[in-house]
Amino acid sequence: MAIDYQSLAVEGVQALSPYQPGKPISELARELGLDPAEIIKLASNENPLGPSKKAISAAENALKELCLYPDGNGFELKQKLSAYLGVNPGQITLGNGSNDVLEVIARCFAGADSEIVFSQYAFAVYPIVTQAIGAKAVAVPAKDWGHDLDAMAAAVTERTRLVFVANPNNPTGTVHDSDAIEAFLGKIPADVLVVLDEAYYEYMTGEKDPDGVALLSRFPNLIVCRTFSKAWGLAALRVGYSISSPAIADILNRVRQPFNVNSTALAAAAAVLEDTDYLQRSRAANTAGLKQLQEAFDQMGLRYIPSSGNFVAVEVGPQAMGVYQALLSHGVIVRPVTGYGMPNHLRVSVGLPEQNELFLNALAKALAAAGQGA
Amino acid sequence: MAIDYQSLAVEGVQALSPYQPGKPISELARELGLDPAEIIKLASNENPLGPSKKAISAAENALKELCLYPDGNGFELKQKLSAYLGVNPGQITLGNGSNDVLEVIARCFAGADSEIVFSQYAFAVYPIVTQAIGAKAVAVPAKDWGHDLDAMAAAVTERTRLVFVANPNNPTGTVHDSDAIEAFLGKIPADVLVVLDEAYYEYMTGEKDPDGVALLSRFPNLIVCRTFSKAWGLAALRVGYSISSPAIADILNRVRQPFNVNSTALAAAAAVLEDTDYLQRSRAANTAGLKQLQEAFDQMGLRYIPSSGNFVAVEVGPQAMGVYQALLSHGVIVRPVTGYGMPNHLRVSVGLPEQNELFLNALAKALAAAGQGA
Repeated sequence: MAIDYQSLAVEGVQALSPYQPGKPISELARELGLDPAEIIKLASNENPLGPSKKAISAAENALKELCLYPDGNGFELKQKLSAYLGVNPGQITLGNGSNDVLEVIARCFAGADSEIVFSQYAFAVYPIVTQAIGAKAVAVPAKDWGHDLDAMAAAVTERTRLVFVANPNNPTGTVHDSDAIEAFLGKIPADVLVVLDEAYYEYMTGEKDPDGVALLSRFPNLIVCRTFSKAWGLAALRVGYSISSPAIADILNRVRQPFNVNSTALAAAAAVLEDTDYLQRSRAANTAGLKQLQEAFDQMGLRYIPSSGNFVAVEVGPQAMGVYQALLSHGVIVRPVTGYGMPNHLRVSVGLPEQNELFLNALAKALAAAGQGA
Repeated sequence: MAIDYQSLAVEGVQALSPYQPGKPISELARELGLDPAEIIKLASNENPLGPSKKAISAAENALKELCLYPDGNGFELKQKLSAYLGVNPGQITLGNGSNDVLEVIARCFAGADSEIVFSQYAFAVYPIVTQAIGAKAVAVPAKDWGHDLDAMAAAVTERTRLVFVANPNNPTGTVHDSDAIEAFLGKIPADVLVVLDEAYYEYMTGEKDPDGVALLSRFPNLIVCRTFSKAWGLAALRVGYSISSPAIADILNRVRQPFNVNSTALAAAAAVLEDTDYLQRSRAANTAGLKQLQEAFDQMGLRYIPSSGNFVAVEVGPQAMGVYQALLSHGVIVRPVTGYGMPNHLRVSVGLPEQNELFLNALAKALAAAGQGA
């Protein structure tokens, strides 16, 4: 009589562990009885600058039409993005964050008999979407914490339908230059789709850093994903997108939910694209903050993975979860990466200078306490 | 060399026609060179009252934290919903509109070898999500434009994993009373999930109208879906939810995207739940508007399907698409339902009294022109 309803779920879903987001400030405040204003969250690679005024103003304006459905075609945002990127609007697929686009791509092009290739230590959403559709995950061992592109190309079989490449990668911050990405794309069969996830694209500062959009004309099997959640500062609103051939975009647009991006998100994203000053300040603040964190780690004798994103994975030793908990008690939220198979590291997002300083002070205390307790 | 990338999509997706939303005001304004303020859209069952001030204020407040990810657990909204509905927060699954929840349910519990049962003339998202996962759609012929619940129960086989019941149904507005829904649930095997889609729940006015939430304790295979897009007036923001057993909610929460509801949506939905005056006014305006439309149709000698929603399907004859086009030229957008297999009907949403009047005048002109042109 009593039925186990969980056993009725499809096989992949039964075994699924959901994505673990960074601990929200409100949650820690509830748990510790702290004022939320006393808490520093450097756990979700969010933009520490605070919002673009142009984005806020556009989102507020969109609230006048709260009772009307969003424009399901995202006409204005696609027009603006197409001008900004130099692509055709028909190449763009909008998503409720790039997470949505990544999931839609997998659901469109892979099934239970497919293999999906990605790297060890790559973004957690790749194995989750793979598992949810019941496809086989092929996680290729990393090299120096980064993608081993040669090994990933070699892992492609007749069953491979998709390869996810995160560049820069989260949570490691590693990056491949344009020569390496092009060489890799040259090795992938034309009927295997490559998703180049450039969520952290805007933070790259190297001269040889690749621009996936510039590669689309040469590699029709390429899908480039980007987001407004990082350097553009719109994480609260959920807007990501992919750029691909129009044929691939047409497929993706059939499966995405018709109103997947809401009206405030559409308006704010279209407005922030014109706030180039905000983007410049985001990039400059990040470059300075990365330097501040990495130099401090050097001085503290801590190893870290040099990062091209807005975060650093720092090695704090086998007691990393204890250090994480100690940081929480100081009101500092960072991200444990044990779930990524990196039990000795913590990932810290780049904050404002004073936030970075408070984190570094709390880290020194937490490490001292952990050393004494060990 | 030239690869047809569309042929690489999974089978169900290749054959998929995407959902056709109502024509946006901005699109018609562009096409006809009209001022958007001159256009009346009665095409998407949107709330004509305009937004709740409490909802706007809460959404504006949420914009202060534009750079931070939403609370992926929707803590505050779930607390408020749980108090409002008299359920446990663990029974709630939040979605980016109820569309999102409907899709997640299908992806969790049905696969390529499953059958999904729904009614002829039922909400278009049911066949779309069924097709996208490659399941077999079992569309049971309607009775008097409504669900034939006996025939739907009889259509359940060993392969059936899900049954979708829309009550009231869109686009027909038909409804079954609580006795009929209970009798139907009593006939469905306990290992087949029933999704009772109550998107238009708040508009029902009959004494014997069912309340799915009250049935959950007796039918553990029941999932009730509701939305903030209709009577609560938040279509722009995309918030829907399901209420089920905690075991089913746990599965759904593994598959939904971790930040599927954005921060403005979470805040506005939590706030509007306390704006009971807004809900009362929405309901009263709808009851009056439905009466206005249905009485006018009676006077014009037009047949219509008596509706329990915020819309009416009116029969305008085989030239319905021509009438739709003529209405567009008068700046009035309604919804053709040919895609639902109802080529003689148009669906008109209940507007404000003056909007209904303008629509009725335009309809009279369009019908006269169609009669002359036929």
